[in-house]
Amino acid sequence: MRMNLDISSKKQLKAKSVFTSQELEDYFDRLYPICRSILGNGFRSSLEILRELIPFEYYDTPSGAQVLDWIVPDEWDCRDAFIIKPDGEKLADFKERNIRVVQYSTPVNTSMTLKELKPHLHTLPDMADHFPYVASYYKRQWGFCLTQKEYDALEEGTYKVVIKSTIKPGFLRYGQTVLKGKTDNEILLSTYLCHPQMANHELAGPLAMAILYRMLKTTGPHKFSYRFVVIPENIGSATLLHQYGDHLVEKVHAGFVLNCLGHGKKWTYKMSRRGNSKSDLAALNQLRFKQHDLDVIPFFPDGSDERQYCSPGFNLPIGLVMRYMYGQFPEYHTSADDKSLISFETLLESAQAYFDIMMTLELDFTPKAKILRGTPMLSRSPIPLYRDTMNFRSHAKTESTRVMLEILNLAEGNLSLLEIAQLKNFDLLLHSELIEDLVKSGYIVYQS
Amino acid sequence: MRMNLDISSKKQLKAKSVFTSQELEDYFDRLYPICRSILGNGFRSSLEILRELIPFEYYDTPSGAQVLDWIVPDEWDCRDAFIIKPDGEKLADFKERNIRVVQYSTPVNTSMTLKELKPHLHTLPDMADHFPYVASYYKRQWGFCLTQKEYDALEEGTYKVVIKSTIKPGFLRYGQTVLKGKTDNEILLSTYLCHPQMANHELAGPLAMAILYRMLKTTGPHKFSYRFVVIPENIGSATLLHQYGDHLVEKVHAGFVLNCLGHGKKWTYKMSRRGNSKSDLAALNQLRFKQHDLDVIPFFPDGSDERQYCSPGFNLPIGLVMRYMYGQFPEYHTSADDKSLISFETLLESAQAYFDIMMTLELDFTPKAKILRGTPMLSRSPIPLYRDTMNFRSHAKTESTRVMLEILNLAEGNLSLLEIAQLKNFDLLLHSELIEDLVKSGYIVYQS
Amino acid sequence: MRMNLDISSKKQLKAKSVFTSQELEDYFDRLYPICRSILGNGFRSSLEILRELIPFEYYDTPSGAQVLDWIVPDEWDCRDAFIIKPDGEKLADFKERNIRVVQYSTPVNTSMTLKELKPHLHTLPDMADHFPYVASYYKRQWGFCLTQKEYDALEEGTYKVVIKSTIKPGFLRYGQTVLKGKTDNEILLSTYLCHPQMANHELAGPLAMAILYRMLKTTGPHKFSYRFVVIPENIGSATLLHQYGDHLVEKVHAGFVLNCLGHGKKWTYKMSRRGNSKSDLAALNQLRFKQHDLDVIPFFPDGSDERQYCSPGFNLPIGLVMRYMYGQFPEYHTSADDKSLISFETLLESAQAYFDIMMTLELDFTPKAKILRGTPMLSRSPIPLYRDTMNFRSHAKTESTRVMLEILNLAEGNLSLLEIAQLKNFDLLLHSELIEDLVKSGYIVYQS
Repeated sequence: MRMNLDISSKKQLKAKSVFTSQELEDYFDRLYPICRSILGNGFRSSLEILRELIPFEYYDTPSGAQVLDWIVPDEWDCRDAFIIKPDGEKLADFKERNIRVVQYSTPVNTSMTLKELKPHLHTLPDMADHFPYVASYYKRQWGFCLTQKEYDALEEGTYKVVIKSTIKPGFLRYGQTVLKGKTDNEILLSTYLCHPQMANHELAGPLAMAILYRMLKTTGPHKFSYRFVVIPENIGSATLLHQYGDHLVEKVHAGFVLNCLGHGKKWTYKMSRRGNSKSDLAALNQLRFKQHDLDVIPFFPDGSDERQYCSPGFNLPIGLVMRYMYGQFPEYHTSADDKSLISFETLLESAQAYFDIMMTLELDFTPKAKILRGTPMLSRSPIPLYRDTMNFRSHAKTESTRVMLEILNLAEGNLSLLEIAQLKNFDLLLHSELIEDLVKSGYIVYQS
Repeated sequence: MRMNLDISSKKQLKAKSVFTSQELEDYFDRLYPICRSILGNGFRSSLEILRELIPFEYYDTPSGAQVLDWIVPDEWDCRDAFIIKPDGEKLADFKERNIRVVQYSTPVNTSMTLKELKPHLHTLPDMADHFPYVASYYKRQWGFCLTQKEYDALEEGTYKVVIKSTIKPGFLRYGQTVLKGKTDNEILLSTYLCHPQMANHELAGPLAMAILYRMLKTTGPHKFSYRFVVIPENIGSATLLHQYGDHLVEKVHAGFVLNCLGHGKKWTYKMSRRGNSKSDLAALNQLRFKQHDLDVIPFFPDGSDERQYCSPGFNLPIGLVMRYMYGQFPEYHTSADDKSLISFETLLESAQAYFDIMMTLELDFTPKAKILRGTPMLSRSPIPLYRDTMNFRSHAKTESTRVMLEILNLAEGNLSLLEIAQLKNFDLLLHSELIEDLVKSGYIVYQS
Repeated sequence: MRMNLDISSKKQLKAKSVFTSQELEDYFDRLYPICRSILGNGFRSSLEILRELIPFEYYDTPSGAQVLDWIVPDEWDCRDAFIIKPDGEKLADFKERNIRVVQYSTPVNTSMTLKELKPHLHTLPDMADHFPYVASYYKRQWGFCLTQKEYDALEEGTYKVVIKSTIKPGFLRYGQTVLKGKTDNEILLSTYLCHPQMANHELAGPLAMAILYRMLKTTGPHKFSYRFVVIPENIGSATLLHQYGDHLVEKVHAGFVLNCLGHGKKWTYKMSRRGNSKSDLAALNQLRFKQHDLDVIPFFPDGSDERQYCSPGFNLPIGLVMRYMYGQFPEYHTSADDKSLISFETLLESAQAYFDIMMTLELDFTPKAKILRGTPMLSRSPIPLYRDTMNFRSHAKTESTRVMLEILNLAEGNLSLLEIAQLKNFDLLLHSELIEDLVKSGYIVYQS
């Protein structure tokens, strides 16, 4: 395979040059108010907006279908929901914030005592001014989310409860598109769009994907093909794997689930189940050298769609680059995860990190040195390879020379550049020009 | 193989319900005064008492027989021994404490000067009020053990020395019984009974074995067969291995040498030579989660019968659960290792820990998950498997849910539950009900 | 193979008994003034002096020959070089210190302005009273080395510049001899002799080799054959490998590059590329137990001749025992690396350490125990093996007994003594008598 090793120019592209914060914010503002769930009109209309940025095709699967071990549920839509207190005041108004109602609540139109109402109310005792996000996809029930303060102020009396929802058979939709590369080996990028009116743990994912799509489109074609999927969380990845699992097992070289990318400075990387996949090597190679702290989390079989992708029968090389990780910031799955929590600058920075990781994957190959017996006499190279003046006094050469010598010494055809970079602790992407020069001058060749 | 997975009920049994401290103390008081050695009447009469608790059969091997590289020595018996000082006072009276005389002392009845006597006297310079325990099984000699104070007060004059002992060909006896299980795979439990009038480093071992026998008998039949052996230390295990070594190599799944179980709160685990045997995994899985500190000691080829069991040609999976380890408490092999050193409560607690380890071994198997492609939809389980309310905010699920998800994710048929528990750091026995429910509901099956 | 295991007597030899400091100093004083370079008369006359101590044969290769990826350069000789300042004073006089002139400077005899002269001047801004050592073997140029003070004091005017050098085709010479042992497996000892008028980073290497040669000669014949080579650095090892590489790959059991052995107390060990070669095991086994600190440096593909020896196509087991490592002491490659920097006592101590490492390699073999089933009954040994009185109270036996039991327990024929010593943390050479006794008494045999 002959590859176009022009990473050095491609990697110059910056996220801020393809998207402005304002453009991101405009899309955020259009998507935020929609009452999405895993199936239903909200999901579909949100996907339609996102399709302005990423040219998805739609894939529909009917309610009741079995996908892997799961059953596609009915659709849920909600038009209004509220409680009328004994004093006539409206409480938990769906139209004020649609996560006031428990997702997949059954329709209700009745009156009841406070005692009867209470089992249907959800609060956050440790965050008195906020209320939780609650869903019940498979067990039929209804409920409302209140702040603890609202809950504590409830008085005895008759409460009117209205939920104007419908639950009926329909279909699960997801969006998928592939940016074709020079090979059919794929990088899988997956995000989800089923959470209503939350900012970091929802819209940060699809918006980062939109930035990344545009960056990869602008700099393409690449060595890899890039598969973008937007799904409802969990049931969506089960559906995708049911339909494309064997293809993905064969073709996916690396991949990531995009979420929690707009809040916090520190980086978090949750490893793939394999622990040493190309995704893990490339992500850690880049994140380790970024300025903010990095937490590396070993794989655990819970969380988001990595549960499905990394289940033992597929074991795909899927990791997650995040800022604060899901479940580890207090606003997660609460009304406090609103627009004020996220920064569009952070989102751009996160997309840039993902782009750097993609470029690292593009740059990676298994080199084989031309000269294995003895060192090459590099002063005879047609292209100058030493990026510094030889200094006879110091064996602490510049980083570039160190990296060059390490690569040449380990280029026996059994270690990839990412593996060499991990062993010898250097930022692979930073040395893309050097690597291109080593290839051009013939000192290393691709190992077929 | 179909197994009866009823560990959850079996593990409820407590050591205190099968033995009282008083009952243990009564047996201790009967065994303590006897002058035991590796062969002879003392060993045999002690074994006869222990057979009231564990139904041993006797295995006899004559003096002079070669067992592996060793020679079975002659028998030694001692009826009396003492020194008469120049002033007529009796010193080092065997009848006061029989470890006053060096084990395997030849018979003596003579008078001598202090200078002649001194080479036969043994003291503990660092513990002035106590005297050592000394034995010389193969090199013929005689001697007495004195406190340093007694030694320092000796005056010139004529000393009368009397040792009424016999050394003559006889036979080595050990006791052995097997508690039959559903399979002929064995757990080997070995202890020794050759030390006279010492408490922790001797009687704690056989008494803990008696408790454990009764607990296993009460809760049986088990998956494994349990082999109980009481031997003279070292020469006994050499004899056992000479006669049963090939059988043990084929059948022993795990095993332990029981000693030093009555003194101290901390736990010590000395690993088997293999370092990753089932004994090691099960013992560490239980001891790591106990309330007292745990010292883990890598295998070294010295100590007790593990020297023989773990010699390279057998390399049996034999470890040792101890409290303070032999050689690491100052009273070890001295007159200070008497009844006041040990606690029968500690002994019961030690036996309980061993029982928990046995139950952990019984619970262990290599699971294979029914659903490998994607996660199972556990809300459809016929048996409720989630032991907690789903909490949408936190990915730090309860320990039970975490353990369930880890097991399901790693149940590919190549890791045992003990290996999964080690990798994912959970107390296996604590989750026996969960594991039974996972089997009953069909989500995991035994890997044949 | 039957080996003569008489290490215990051989290892008694001390470096000080074969060489005095004065004898070393005399050779130093004869070698130091010579203007050596990688080829030329200086190298050859220095090698002629060194041949008084080590009976080298000469191997010559013409300029222009390709050796591996390298080209043998022309010879350089320099008879005189200086600058005459505008005031008539002589500066940078080659005859005062021959590293005043850049190695391989082309001949010059001309006058020029200060501005024209300056690009040819080299200084050490951070060591104002010293000047650097500079060479340019392949790029034709000329130059002088000045102290920063000299440089700063230069005034405008006309400078006369004279370099009386010749660069012309000739031949590269290296010296090589083999001290024959009982087998043709080899220990490779390599040093270089191409640096003029520097002390630690040059003459310490060949002088240590001379000591080591005499020690090995005196105590021989040995199990291994010892190959001694003195070469010009880098191009010399490339030439040697070009001519003898396949032989060395087949025969070299362990080996070292000798340099930087006269300055500093601490030890530095740079590992071979393999990281677990016999060289690494033996060197670390000895250096770890020496009184001075030890720095262990993982292999990096730069430095001295290990670049060639450890290139992937040869990957020889070559490490370096040093005191302060090249590049890590400030005087390295400067005029400050003169006789005052080194200590002949340190040099003797360094040679002794190398000798100890050789004896450790000689002692090493893969033992197989006679008794594998159970422990041996060592009290029946024809040779007393316990080097201490049995102490029944303590399992912390003396080190000798501990080492004996560990060896017997691990002597299954798959681990060498060096590997056992590494695993169980003991100084192998310290226990040579014990090992000889274990062999004599038959408890361990050589594994063929």
